[in-house]
Amino acid sequence: MVVAVGVAVLGSTGSIGTSALDVLRAQKDRFRVVSLAAGKNSAALIEQAREFSPRLVSVADADTADEVRKELGEGTRVVYGPEGLVEAAMVDEASTVIAAVVGAVGIEAVLAALRANKRVALANKETLVAAGDLVTGLLKKGYGELLPVDSEHAAIHQCLNGARTNEVSRLILTASGGPFRTAPLDHINQATPAEALKHPTWNMGGKITIDSATLMNKGLEVIEAHWLFGMDYDSIDVVVHPQSIVHSLVEFVDGSVLAQLGAPDMRVPIQYALNYPERTPGRWRPFSLVEAGVLTFEPPDVTRFPALRLAYDAGRIGGTAPCVLNAANEVAVAFFLKEACRFGDIPACVEETLAAHSPRAVESLDDVLDADRWAREKAAHVLERLLV
Amino acid sequence: MVVAVGVAVLGSTGSIGTSALDVLRAQKDRFRVVSLAAGKNSAALIEQAREFSPRLVSVADADTADEVRKELGEGTRVVYGPEGLVEAAMVDEASTVIAAVVGAVGIEAVLAALRANKRVALANKETLVAAGDLVTGLLKKGYGELLPVDSEHAAIHQCLNGARTNEVSRLILTASGGPFRTAPLDHINQATPAEALKHPTWNMGGKITIDSATLMNKGLEVIEAHWLFGMDYDSIDVVVHPQSIVHSLVEFVDGSVLAQLGAPDMRVPIQYALNYPERTPGRWRPFSLVEAGVLTFEPPDVTRFPALRLAYDAGRIGGTAPCVLNAANEVAVAFFLKEACRFGDIPACVEETLAAHSPRAVESLDDVLDADRWAREKAAHVLERLLV
Repeated sequence: MVVAVGVAVLGSTGSIGTSALDVLRAQKDRFRVVSLAAGKNSAALIEQAREFSPRLVSVADADTADEVRKELGEGTRVVYGPEGLVEAAMVDEASTVIAAVVGAVGIEAVLAALRANKRVALANKETLVAAGDLVTGLLKKGYGELLPVDSEHAAIHQCLNGARTNEVSRLILTASGGPFRTAPLDHINQATPAEALKHPTWNMGGKITIDSATLMNKGLEVIEAHWLFGMDYDSIDVVVHPQSIVHSLVEFVDGSVLAQLGAPDMRVPIQYALNYPERTPGRWRPFSLVEAGVLTFEPPDVTRFPALRLAYDAGRIGGTAPCVLNAANEVAVAFFLKEACRFGDIPACVEETLAAHSPRAVESLDDVLDADRWAREKAAHVLERLLV
Repeated sequence: MVVAVGVAVLGSTGSIGTSALDVLRAQKDRFRVVSLAAGKNSAALIEQAREFSPRLVSVADADTADEVRKELGEGTRVVYGPEGLVEAAMVDEASTVIAAVVGAVGIEAVLAALRANKRVALANKETLVAAGDLVTGLLKKGYGELLPVDSEHAAIHQCLNGARTNEVSRLILTASGGPFRTAPLDHINQATPAEALKHPTWNMGGKITIDSATLMNKGLEVIEAHWLFGMDYDSIDVVVHPQSIVHSLVEFVDGSVLAQLGAPDMRVPIQYALNYPERTPGRWRPFSLVEAGVLTFEPPDVTRFPALRLAYDAGRIGGTAPCVLNAANEVAVAFFLKEACRFGDIPACVEETLAAHSPRAVESLDDVLDADRWAREKAAHVLERLLV
């Protein structure tokens, strides 16, 4: 008899989390959910817990924990806060952790899971962006296993398929270009949240949709790709591909290029990461190249989308710089979504915060958290001044 | 010290052969040419022999052999005819044989090379189309190694990269669509050789260019893919992709699709097959997705291009049927190139020859050669009658 693999789903009520539960629901013979972690969406979490009967659930705070506890039976322990999130990642029976929480709060849980030798299916961008040194340090020492879950890195993982670094000449990340791909700079700078939230191809959460509109999302993915695949920034390119059918590409030293493509459905990379190295049947409709019909590719414009350039800059500086880039961006996006700053203020705030930062090496989680805290305060000040 | 791998190049003066010598010239530290086989182009062969100093060269006939022998020194033995071709494939020092001769004449040399446990880099379509049973029989018994050299199968080989058959749901071969992709049927049927020889993307020999115009080339590749990758005909699709940038694709059971792409340059798949499983740097200009810009995909039209349907039919019948398809097609294309029949007569002749054939199992090379001979005679009769 095959014992189902225990899975912890961190960020279970978010966009990636619910897609992950879709996959786990369809592969109950292979996987069982042993813990769930969410934020404040208690209603959704309660429903998920009733369906999957995890041993433990974690939520954002004590009040939400009380609410959830009342609804769930004795079999499910309810914890909360950052410690709760780490606990959810560390449940013994979980050999795989899907890390789909948004924000820096996910970093500690991922590091803990790797240290405990678990497979981490990573959808939390901040972990590699801010703590890439720490993560790759653990992996190099033989702790745990890291598989990318977002479509671009999962595409590259599939194209590489074990190729040696010296056989690879370039990674090419595709970007949809977002809702402002063809908009003039003036329009972009004044864009409203409603406009920025209209993603042309993917249906995702608010923060990541704004990041797609600034191209910061692609910039963060460039930094992740650097850490995941051990490639220099000079060997990581971005190409704008508005149809989001080709999820990314790898160019080899012999000039051959491999691409991974398919419908924009997060369940494909999630199922791939869960089952790797095996491929298992998907129950979704097969992708049709003829239906896709036309695929186009164009260079990204870093004049209209300076966030992409800033991410390359921060990546090349290294140390705490990418953490600061990410934290300042999180603050600016939050301001923007509250209509407390303009769209153009997002990259401006990131640039000014980065310029004010004295980067240091990242040797511990505290180094990351200190830089993160400093950047958030600094970014808020920058934005308040920009808004005067 | 690394000893260079000995390579036999069969069909050295043709389009694939000269590309292969380009690759071998650039990788002299890895490979040395130990034999060359050509047809009647003595001037080109003499030049190649002077450059690469093979131990043996083979040509089509005794007259050409005399001509070549006069020009080359004592160090190079000159042989001729079908026996000469087999001898060129069997030179002891050759551990890799590039089989790039056009036509059924290549089959025996490939079978001999496999039986002698050599790696065969296969660009001869007829071998797998007509003798797929014999070739896969040898491979299954552990004799030799077969690597595809044409761009479509090399693409699929790269996308599969060792995947198990039960992880693959579909092979998707791309076709340029040829010069008559958008032409009405009436126009196609009356097309002249000059029109049919205008291939939109690849610069190839005459026979294969006509086969691209009828889509018979793609049909033959479907049959080859069946043998090379062990897939049913129902799981092999063709999609028309006029830009010839995506060389072919593989769909996996999880819905993920991998594609191989690049500039239309045969040196890429040749170098891949020679060095597999290693990838080595190419000296050609890197491929640019942004320069390619737009990639389009459309279904093939078997009403206007019946040759594709005929190839699937013959493949599904199996036994001697694909051999007959191929032989009848060779005869009809030769007639067409001499302006002795119309373009539309090519598939008509193939269809009528196939319909008149009683397929048998292929158990020996003689079964293949008998069917080939029968089909050539029959096809010539069919054409002569069509032309009355």
